Amino acid sequence: MFNKRIKIKELLNSEPQEQQETVMGWVRTFRNNQFIALNDGSTNNNLQVVLELGKFDEDLLKRITTSASLKVTGTVIPSLGKGQKLELKADTVEILGDSDAEKYPLQPKKHSLEFLREKAHLRFRTNTFGAIFRIRHSLAFAIHKFFNDKGFVYLHTPIVTASDAEGAGEMFRVTTLPFDNPPRLDDGSVDFTEDFFGRSTNLTVSGQLEGELGATAFGEIYTFGPTFRAENSNTARHLAEFWMIEPEMAFCDLEDNMNLAEEFIQYIIRYAMDHNADDLEFLRQRLLDEEKQKPQAERSELDLIQKLQFVTENKFERITYTEAIDILLQSPAYKKKKFQYEVKWGIDMQSEHERYLVEKHFKKPVIVTNYPKEIKAFYMRQNEDGKTVAAMDILAPGIGEIVGGSQREERMDKLTERMKEMHIPAEELWWYLDTRRFGTVPHAGFGLGFERMVQFVTGMGNIRDVIAFPRTPKNAEF
Amino acid sequence: MFNKRIKIKELLNSEPQEQQETVMGWVRTFRNNQFIALNDGSTNNNLQVVLELGKFDEDLLKRITTSASLKVTGTVIPSLGKGQKLELKADTVEILGDSDAEKYPLQPKKHSLEFLREKAHLRFRTNTFGAIFRIRHSLAFAIHKFFNDKGFVYLHTPIVTASDAEGAGEMFRVTTLPFDNPPRLDDGSVDFTEDFFGRSTNLTVSGQLEGELGATAFGEIYTFGPTFRAENSNTARHLAEFWMIEPEMAFCDLEDNMNLAEEFIQYIIRYAMDHNADDLEFLRQRLLDEEKQKPQAERSELDLIQKLQFVTENKFERITYTEAIDILLQSPAYKKKKFQYEVKWGIDMQSEHERYLVEKHFKKPVIVTNYPKEIKAFYMRQNEDGKTVAAMDILAPGIGEIVGGSQREERMDKLTERMKEMHIPAEELWWYLDTRRFGTVPHAGFGLGFERMVQFVTGMGNIRDVIAFPRTPKNAEF
Repeated sequence: MFNKRIKIKELLNSEPQEQQETVMGWVRTFRNNQFIALNDGSTNNNLQVVLELGKFDEDLLKRITTSASLKVTGTVIPSLGKGQKLELKADTVEILGDSDAEKYPLQPKKHSLEFLREKAHLRFRTNTFGAIFRIRHSLAFAIHKFFNDKGFVYLHTPIVTASDAEGAGEMFRVTTLPFDNPPRLDDGSVDFTEDFFGRSTNLTVSGQLEGELGATAFGEIYTFGPTFRAENSNTARHLAEFWMIEPEMAFCDLEDNMNLAEEFIQYIIRYAMDHNADDLEFLRQRLLDEEKQKPQAERSELDLIQKLQFVTENKFERITYTEAIDILLQSPAYKKKKFQYEVKWGIDMQSEHERYLVEKHFKKPVIVTNYPKEIKAFYMRQNEDGKTVAAMDILAPGIGEIVGGSQREERMDKLTERMKEMHIPAEELWWYLDTRRFGTVPHAGFGLGFERMVQFVTGMGNIRDVIAFPRTPKNAEF
Repeated sequence: MFNKRIKIKELLNSEPQEQQETVMGWVRTFRNNQFIALNDGSTNNNLQVVLELGKFDEDLLKRITTSASLKVTGTVIPSLGKGQKLELKADTVEILGDSDAEKYPLQPKKHSLEFLREKAHLRFRTNTFGAIFRIRHSLAFAIHKFFNDKGFVYLHTPIVTASDAEGAGEMFRVTTLPFDNPPRLDDGSVDFTEDFFGRSTNLTVSGQLEGELGATAFGEIYTFGPTFRAENSNTARHLAEFWMIEPEMAFCDLEDNMNLAEEFIQYIIRYAMDHNADDLEFLRQRLLDEEKQKPQAERSELDLIQKLQFVTENKFERITYTEAIDILLQSPAYKKKKFQYEVKWGIDMQSEHERYLVEKHFKKPVIVTNYPKEIKAFYMRQNEDGKTVAAMDILAPGIGEIVGGSQREERMDKLTERMKEMHIPAEELWWYLDTRRFGTVPHAGFGLGFERMVQFVTGMGNIRDVIAFPRTPKNAEF
């Protein structure tokens, strides 16, 4: 049995009592042929391993290079150095794997995030990405815990889907047909009945419609899975493959939906703050350093942790779309013609408008409700005014839209009428309509883009830095 | 606010003290214009709602049909009926959604599983599927909890991948190129540099290789995501889209790997037994009824719950592949020529062999180790004998292979040599090989097919009945 080791995180939290311990990890630095900073990924904090001078072979010492892997057994003693309570006085050091310091791509200096994106297979070994991905883990676990504790059922909605009715964006085709000589119908078009699934299929853009099927049986469900957009957007905010959480609740209206979303966001942020204090502190410092490059005026008033605290400790602002437009029209920014895009009732608000509301006007997360029906999906519940739908978007500082949701149209006549207006083929969604046909109930739900949330909590500006192996136009490496 | 209701599960666990409560749910049955069995998906147990004779309108009573949705407010009183502690004496009954009893596809009778598969959007509303999907939820949560408690990092490995090096099975192409007139190179072949990702891409068959990148930085990671096989297998054991869990551990050998897998499987089964006792009892009874259709000799000796207890309470048998072959060669089944397929050292054991070992010989889960290298993947660690690799498969009664894993080949020379022999292109896996180049460590991992596990715990014979919307050849409905 190999795995008789103590994790460095656990060791650093223990008391030095001259106990014997074995640790394994990778060398971060080696100073004066004496002090190894060893990291095993359990925490960004390195263990100081001390080698007694003269005790170890020269040949061995030469092999202790950055990223070499070691097995060290020794005695845990109080540390005389500052910044650490304890250190490991080595009795034996075994090289598990060498690392050629000249060839190792991550040198002991600061690399740019762009450079590290090309080394995505190794960037986990840096402090920044160690912190990000441990926080990402905590957020994912918190999401499952939040919904499990409330009795929601985790539903795995399909990834490959024949339904293209939602119109949430461009889709990727999934196929086993050969490009060179696909089977064709008499009219020359490709015969998708010969494809693997007997029809044309795509990668899902959302699990919501199937989620509604679950909610109208289990009461409350959530999804947490990958979704896809074949949009040719090469920006810091877009991924072709990203993870989404979509809770869906029966017996639930727009207000319940907002209450749940707010409680949910506050819960998962608090969870990360409670479980990843070290990692957040590291990222807070990183962000401060990054902001020092910016002109004073563009720097954030709050640091990363203050920003998170602000979200967990304050109620979100709730305004209607109509109120939001009024605020924009009354704003100094509008009057000074600082907005690039038009502002009037009916527009799909642009990022500059959302940021004004969140960052300048309210300075906190804002829930905007009751959008014009023309700019929202067919399944959103129509309000009495005939103009708006019971939608809600949550806008977060620095990120923009982080949640999109609505009460769903549960009335069969209203729903099919709207589908007709929007040219949604009812016959393809026969199963969706059945939920309205047989014991329909008021219900609501929302979608949270997981990577946007991770960005918000880690303070990372580019979405490619919060997912392990980003998929973007012209890029599917690793 | 709409959602001021008590869930029926919670209500049934409370004491009747004449408290006022509001419940919402769907009608399962309505007897004698008086007794409604109401279900809200939180449990298979229905709440009995009692309507005082003469108190409610005839028109209302007529609308209380199977699957109609209701909001009922009333008083919780002790029940005089048997099998239930309490009932709700209705003060008000509101029809939320009607359901035409003639048209509702699920009649109050027993439907076949095949029929229900075609009504997958409604089958959640049956007792069988209610139980299955609540158990599926519990297993999923238990998986996250198990790894989180041990400090593993949940890694989202990519779904779309350009790597086709693993050779785990046939793959689905992911593309945005048009079939009708795809861009072509001078030699007439399709120009995939024009495709969305700038190269030919597929749906992942496994996250393992990327998982190893995570493990060699964080120490211990796991994945839990969808994987895909474009195999034209129309059987009760195959899905084109299924979910897989793949833990990967640095500083870990084959024995550690087996220990973890065994602990893991026992943990998640115990979790479901602790949290889904009602649902398991329902499925136990269902299975007993199903088995009554079979001849005595084919019936299981243990019922569902006994079978689960047996797995959680007994150590798994551990044998080498060589021992397994010897057992088969010595078996009465072999001597009586009952095996359809050949038995000799070197074969890839067939289902009949695995079942013999598990169900007849050992009568418990069996871990088979050290398979011939010829029938295993390139990344498995080569044993000293030059013939076998440090693989381990876990075989479960009734299901067959439920876990496949191995210690990984961490030695660069051995790995690249084996890749050459197996025609795995090293240049495509440059990032994978980097983990061996820079501080390689002994490491190991395994994959668990989630649906197979859900089958095992629920006792369902067909894998299509344990995933919400199965994807199989010629079928991608919903």
